[in-house]
Amino acid sequence: MAAMTQIEAARKGQATDAMRAAAEHDRVPVEQIVEGVAKGTIVVPKNTGHAFSRVIGVGRGLRTKTNANIGTSTDVCDLDFELKKLDVCRKAGVDAVMDLSTGGDLKAIRKAILDACDMPLGTVPIYQAAVEIIAQGREISSMTPDELFGAIEAHCAEGVDFITVHCGVTRAAVEALRREGRLLDVVSRGGAFLTDWILTNNAENPLYADYNRLLEIARRHDVTLSLGDGMRPGCLADATDRAQITELITLGELQQRSLAAGVQAMIEGPGHIPLNEVAENIRLEKELCHGAPFYVLGPIVTDVAPGYDHITSAIGGAIAAAAGADFLCYVTPAEHLRLPELDDVREGVFAARIAAHAGDVAKGIPGARDWDDEMARWRKKRDWSKQIELALDPERARDFHSTHVSHIEDACTMCSEFCSIRLLDKHR
Amino acid sequence: MAAMTQIEAARKGQATDAMRAAAEHDRVPVEQIVEGVAKGTIVVPKNTGHAFSRVIGVGRGLRTKTNANIGTSTDVCDLDFELKKLDVCRKAGVDAVMDLSTGGDLKAIRKAILDACDMPLGTVPIYQAAVEIIAQGREISSMTPDELFGAIEAHCAEGVDFITVHCGVTRAAVEALRREGRLLDVVSRGGAFLTDWILTNNAENPLYADYNRLLEIARRHDVTLSLGDGMRPGCLADATDRAQITELITLGELQQRSLAAGVQAMIEGPGHIPLNEVAENIRLEKELCHGAPFYVLGPIVTDVAPGYDHITSAIGGAIAAAAGADFLCYVTPAEHLRLPELDDVREGVFAARIAAHAGDVAKGIPGARDWDDEMARWRKKRDWSKQIELALDPERARDFHSTHVSHIEDACTMCSEFCSIRLLDKHR
Repeated sequence: MAAMTQIEAARKGQATDAMRAAAEHDRVPVEQIVEGVAKGTIVVPKNTGHAFSRVIGVGRGLRTKTNANIGTSTDVCDLDFELKKLDVCRKAGVDAVMDLSTGGDLKAIRKAILDACDMPLGTVPIYQAAVEIIAQGREISSMTPDELFGAIEAHCAEGVDFITVHCGVTRAAVEALRREGRLLDVVSRGGAFLTDWILTNNAENPLYADYNRLLEIARRHDVTLSLGDGMRPGCLADATDRAQITELITLGELQQRSLAAGVQAMIEGPGHIPLNEVAENIRLEKELCHGAPFYVLGPIVTDVAPGYDHITSAIGGAIAAAAGADFLCYVTPAEHLRLPELDDVREGVFAARIAAHAGDVAKGIPGARDWDDEMARWRKKRDWSKQIELALDPERARDFHSTHVSHIEDACTMCSEFCSIRLLDKHR
Repeated sequence: MAAMTQIEAARKGQATDAMRAAAEHDRVPVEQIVEGVAKGTIVVPKNTGHAFSRVIGVGRGLRTKTNANIGTSTDVCDLDFELKKLDVCRKAGVDAVMDLSTGGDLKAIRKAILDACDMPLGTVPIYQAAVEIIAQGREISSMTPDELFGAIEAHCAEGVDFITVHCGVTRAAVEALRREGRLLDVVSRGGAFLTDWILTNNAENPLYADYNRLLEIARRHDVTLSLGDGMRPGCLADATDRAQITELITLGELQQRSLAAGVQAMIEGPGHIPLNEVAENIRLEKELCHGAPFYVLGPIVTDVAPGYDHITSAIGGAIAAAAGADFLCYVTPAEHLRLPELDDVREGVFAARIAAHAGDVAKGIPGARDWDDEMARWRKKRDWSKQIELALDPERARDFHSTHVSHIEDACTMCSEFCSIRLLDKHR
């Protein structure tokens, strides 16, 4: 149990070990982390009961972070496979992982992942509650508030660092959705569970109605709330609509209450957004949520490319990061088609990291461009081994380069003796 | 020989067969094409001597088009392989192809590609001149103006639809580069040949000095000039610098002379550009080149991801297209590492098509969003075979979906019975 949460320490100007680790990770002064946590513009997701090495800060002024979702479904359920995914994530350099399992022994899977996870782990506790209810042959909408809070309490007690809680799926948001209409209604699983619950029970979302109970649980373990966007658009047509923005306003209010209660919180965001609406979505969040860290899923900028949604989301994610998004949830090539395989996870992480870095260069995160400039210097020297070493994914760069060897020593097979850089060397 | 070029016909308000085909291709009124060609804001690249079915317009108000570069190098040289690449390009739905061969019998390769190519084909004639000179044991800088114009003449006479000519690599641009300095100097091959030529011979670029000769040749076959950006930045650090913009101003002037001479022209653009400078680069071109079609290579928004440059360029390309770029040259995952393999070509084309479509949705090309909305409707119905049919790449979507079959008939293995869309059906 946290004697003092990160926020409470930060308010007193005290740096915790976690803040120091986060500062070191980003190579920023620890005061920047302390100030951001106190203001609620930075979160350092870390459960007091989870020891891990790669502690990170997420928020304003910091390097954009990436998250990878792993986890079973009832169709694809194998703990070893999940641990392999976790390993792929770690090697590919992701900053955080979420276990979204809905198949098998959820508690055992979560424990194994938590034990193996040397970075922040997030979960969506309502999945656990729903899975248990389905196992009892009941409808998800029969979930009692105690069952829902019980799942949250269990996840927090086990050491989960951040939890997605769809507190903004309120009767008002559902009503806004109903009045305006949508092509794809609700595509968030947790959002759909709660929309179903609200409509079936004709009652308010317990996570909203009894938000203080949630804050108490989270405070006890210093768990970071990830205020979920259950109303996120599932297609371009539904983007930036009244249901989405109604929910966003609520999330902003809840983040303020969370901050006051000493509980860290970030805001989750879309989803499927046309390219020209991505930056405005980020600015809206920063306005309506008073600069709270923004954690976006994608966003995907077209609906027509299943099989390539790591690319559609890298486009949206890069623009979002440049506009101020702080945390990018990866999307894999398997999105909309199947649970991801190991290669999908790997592709997804690298695509998200590209988006994050391109955004960091654009928003002027100190030091971000140095990496690019260093690569350019070794390109000028046509030193392939240094270029490969500096590459985001040295393994792939090496694979590509080594399969074709040029007869020209310091060129590649694309240009061979017609290498432009080589040609102009004599004029230097 | 063209009795009347496209521009001359357009100026008289006459629609040519090519303009009609281009209008049909984009489902726009032919008057829009006629007007755009007359003003120089649209080009319809088609050599009078090259018959092909997929005639396209490139420019303002039209769907953003994509190009794939194929061609041999001295290290990887196999005509059959190039024809296979062409076939991959065609099947992946690219709009145009450039043959950038520098290895083998260039004329024979070009003829075979031209014969097999049912879309516009572009080339860079200076490569041919350079390759012939190297074969004679001479330095590229010993190229005579007659040799250069001879290669151009040959390509135009053979039926090439558009040619890259680096007319803007002038003494002034080279001097601007020298004074300001760069990390990576010149990374365009044609740009490097001409920079070398200018510095070695202490003379002006023949393509600039004798631009009228170029216009005469192009006019004879109604070849579209692609005014090359020999000064394009090869790394983020060099983006939007004085050499690049000096050249761009020159290209704008030359496009105006081209238009006056009845010769279609578009402007080539970068290259490596930080995300936050992409839109301004497009706006600059539209201002400085009076709305001439803009043909960009990428742009790549970070230098650190060799092996994933189809993604880094999809990010930049999408933003560029949204900001008004008209034509995206693909970049493959092999860029900076080797000549592309067939899979690289395929990935590159689809990444470029995603960027183009995301841009078209954002800039409001009529009808572009309909495709996304249609996909959303079939997602709502959980009709996987329709989703696959509608996908940008149905083959890949089918592969992904069919490898994992859910035990829930109308769900996928990601969510199985917890499919959000399925759950809310009962409330409709």
